[in-house]
Amino acid sequence: MIPPIYADQIHHWYLDLQHQICQSLEAIEQESLALDIYQEWQPQQFEKRPWDYAQSGGGQMHILQHGRVFEKAGVNVSCVWGEFAKEFAAKIPGAADDPRFWACGISLVIHPRNPYVPIVHMNTRHIVTTKSWFGGGSDLTPSIPYDADTQIFHQAFKECCDDFDPTYYPKFKAGCDEYFYLPHRKEMRGVGGIFYDYHNTGNFEVDSAFNQSVGKTFLKTYPPIVRRRMAQAWGTKEVQKLQHKRGRYVEFNLIHDRGTQFGLKTGGNIDAILMSLPPTASWAA
Amino acid sequence: MIPPIYADQIHHWYLDLQHQICQSLEAIEQESLALDIYQEWQPQQFEKRPWDYAQSGGGQMHILQHGRVFEKAGVNVSCVWGEFAKEFAAKIPGAADDPRFWACGISLVIHPRNPYVPIVHMNTRHIVTTKSWFGGGSDLTPSIPYDADTQIFHQAFKECCDDFDPTYYPKFKAGCDEYFYLPHRKEMRGVGGIFYDYHNTGNFEVDSAFNQSVGKTFLKTYPPIVRRRMAQAWGTKEVQKLQHKRGRYVEFNLIHDRGTQFGLKTGGNIDAILMSLPPTASWAA
Repeated sequence: MIPPIYADQIHHWYLDLQHQICQSLEAIEQESLALDIYQEWQPQQFEKRPWDYAQSGGGQMHILQHGRVFEKAGVNVSCVWGEFAKEFAAKIPGAADDPRFWACGISLVIHPRNPYVPIVHMNTRHIVTTKSWFGGGSDLTPSIPYDADTQIFHQAFKECCDDFDPTYYPKFKAGCDEYFYLPHRKEMRGVGGIFYDYHNTGNFEVDSAFNQSVGKTFLKTYPPIVRRRMAQAWGTKEVQKLQHKRGRYVEFNLIHDRGTQFGLKTGGNIDAILMSLPPTASWAA
Repeated sequence: MIPPIYADQIHHWYLDLQHQICQSLEAIEQESLALDIYQEWQPQQFEKRPWDYAQSGGGQMHILQHGRVFEKAGVNVSCVWGEFAKEFAAKIPGAADDPRFWACGISLVIHPRNPYVPIVHMNTRHIVTTKSWFGGGSDLTPSIPYDADTQIFHQAFKECCDDFDPTYYPKFKAGCDEYFYLPHRKEMRGVGGIFYDYHNTGNFEVDSAFNQSVGKTFLKTYPPIVRRRMAQAWGTKEVQKLQHKRGRYVEFNLIHDRGTQFGLKTGGNIDAILMSLPPTASWAA
């Protein structure tokens, strides 16, 4: 039963999405050559780092660093299977009595250099134990928020959800607000988006199509938001806001993030798991 | 029973140690005026930020930022009491059936600007539930280690331990190596020191004297280590090592540190709990 018969098909779809996203971000690096504010830096491309999982499977980590527009962008596809450690298995649906699992997904975090360009995260995944489900979402974390950008982002994911079920968007938007929250700071991580987990309507084809649509919506929506802001010049004050927001991003990912915990508990590739951490961050007190 | 009758005495001892440590670090800030390598920065003093605990008691957070030698130094004394939340109480010795607690301690983390001067942490605390114990320790985290500094640090705490019991040092040094370890990186946080917890020999006076001796040993040992290294000029390469080490420090504190978890779970002052985070950090991938 594990891996499922459609494993290759799902895996290749994620790899294709990864390729398209990386191309799209590299194109923005080139476009930025027209902008003097990035003259200190050279346009960068994604470096490909394949890795093997200690049990079975592995991943493709694509990482772009020290770019003009993108200071650090990690786009990771992983497809791993094996058995959960006992105490962890108890917390995973369908794994308490049979710890075998298969998991495949794409996960990305983009840390732009320009404080006016929002940080973004997108992840979609499919997990199989004795149960199976999809999970994922995308959220926008501007250091300096613009209502217009926020609206474009939310509207795109609303349309993506509404194509499948009118109840999805309100539910998954609320899920995002609840999930991307730092209780110890009493702060939202960013301006939200959508978040869903343990998603299984009983119709695999439709659920898989929804999961793919989330990835495609990201690809269609984030690059235009970057292009709206990337020409805005910034100064020291804006960098402070960016570094502060990046600090909060680190706190969320290391203290709360379920994907990070999943990776740490299952012995995944540490560089891929912590790829989400910003290139720099600060904590003024 | 809670707070204990000796509460004020312990609390004032911690406040006095805090005062001495802060004075000692401020003196180094002044001494650095003789060194040109710090000319971009002004000597700084500790800012005092008292805070109230949501239940009873509170703390004195002393924080020095943007200094010459010390980019960020936080020295916090807190004395809090109340009741643990139910699920947390179950994990604390003596609190399962009676969730009342009293806790008093000093905690400091120092992030020097110069990559040749080691980061340091020291904490000693006394906790009372239906049981009572001391805990604490100190560990050194150089970005660029020098065996000589490491030896001075270890020797000082060895002598501190040996004054009480020859079995303490080997045990508490091993405890430190085990505790300040990042399993996800398979790396030690730094070069160690000592770490002890749930320490209760049955002789309160002696245990309290040992706990005080750990604080005094820190005060006598760290400033000379700073003075050995603070005149060494550094460059970009050394800053990268410092930023990398600070990133690891953040990972340890947010993922593993028991004191951070204690603070987050008991609703302590978030600024005091996360005072340990470095002023800046980086994660190159």
